Amino acid sequence: MTNIKVIAFDADDTLWVNETYFRDAENEFAKLLSGYETENKIHQELYKKEIDNLKIYGYGVKGFVLSMVECALEISNNKVNQNTINKILEIGKEMLEQPIDLLDGVEEVLQKLQGKYKLIVATKGDLLDQERKLEKSGILKYFHHTEVMSDKKDKDYLKLIKHLDIDPSELLMIGNSLKSDVLPLVKIGASAIHIPFHTTWAHEEVSEEQKSDNYKTVSKITDVLNFL
Amino acid sequence: MTNIKVIAFDADDTLWVNETYFRDAENEFAKLLSGYETENKIHQELYKKEIDNLKIYGYGVKGFVLSMVECALEISNNKVNQNTINKILEIGKEMLEQPIDLLDGVEEVLQKLQGKYKLIVATKGDLLDQERKLEKSGILKYFHHTEVMSDKKDKDYLKLIKHLDIDPSELLMIGNSLKSDVLPLVKIGASAIHIPFHTTWAHEEVSEEQKSDNYKTVSKITDVLNFL
Repeated sequence: MTNIKVIAFDADDTLWVNETYFRDAENEFAKLLSGYETENKIHQELYKKEIDNLKIYGYGVKGFVLSMVECALEISNNKVNQNTINKILEIGKEMLEQPIDLLDGVEEVLQKLQGKYKLIVATKGDLLDQERKLEKSGILKYFHHTEVMSDKKDKDYLKLIKHLDIDPSELLMIGNSLKSDVLPLVKIGASAIHIPFHTTWAHEEVSEEQKSDNYKTVSKITDVLNFL
Repeated sequence: MTNIKVIAFDADDTLWVNETYFRDAENEFAKLLSGYETENKIHQELYKKEIDNLKIYGYGVKGFVLSMVECALEISNNKVNQNTINKILEIGKEMLEQPIDLLDGVEEVLQKLQGKYKLIVATKGDLLDQERKLEKSGILKYFHHTEVMSDKKDKDYLKLIKHLDIDPSELLMIGNSLKSDVLPLVKIGASAIHIPFHTTWAHEEVSEEQKSDNYKTVSKITDVLNFL
């Protein structure tokens, strides 16, 4: 990591807590529908629905809420109480208005790196939602800009690199998802640091054999300073 | 317009037809709910709901669908048939899968400008949705990248200019909305060309006194070539 020019930070679960709010929302959803199915089955159906809809809705809270509404109608054979639909919409609005819980050490790391590298946010989420979180959390000032990516596969990072007008070797990505923030970077010749978060969405999990040695894993964000 | 380096194109209703699909969706929505209210009242309530939710959902189809669901529940006092909710979700999915109807002259203009300027797309819509439209329409290859903006006010364009590392005078924006694609640019010292589309969302309309002489208005996109 000698010629890094741009450091890209994943946002959700790297800068602040996010997955926890999705888990809470899923639990609330399962309770609302518990008259129709076991909570386990409801979780399974909601996950299937989210994955089915990913190609059309993409990532983020709004698509998640639309999937919850669709799933509630299906599970209940269109019998779900209209008031429950209202409650699902409310869950979504609460998620979008959630307080920002910055992870320990984030601000310290940004302070130390600013001016030395171009710092950006690279996220799959919804731009408005992510910008609101950056503003609320007071760390917007450290970033050159936010890159919204429709996905985080090799080709999306190649597009990002073209957009930044840099060489792959000049990019370091820091994030909590091996699948989205680390492995594609290694593949295209960029650098990556993995900081696992305690909760990982099933869709972001990777099997052991997909892992590689060409990246660093650290347990907390301040550890990245050891490599820079 | 002598030192333009970057030309930013608005997407919806500048490169392809969009507003027409929203109008069709609103009409379909009003028909679905016509047992509860006059179609005129339903249109008014939906518009109010969209504007109320704009700060939390932002622009794009997904927020629009969530607003339709909420509005249907309100108008019907939570009595709307569950099947109607399903139909609203389907309207949304159809919008996201609509065929792309490129406006006349778009490809010719992009062909002539490519290589001479950095061409980008600057949109308030949802990234996944806009990228899908660019790919489907075959014009993705002409653009350096897509800029998703959470809004299109002065401050958002200043952010864009910082991100592009250019001077305001080096940016030309081309779009169909006076309010979003033209007036903020004039205000920050950039250039703008206005190409009105036959349908304008009420939220994008501006009063006569807000207009300014510091931009060009043309009737079709190929006319922009006269200024470049």
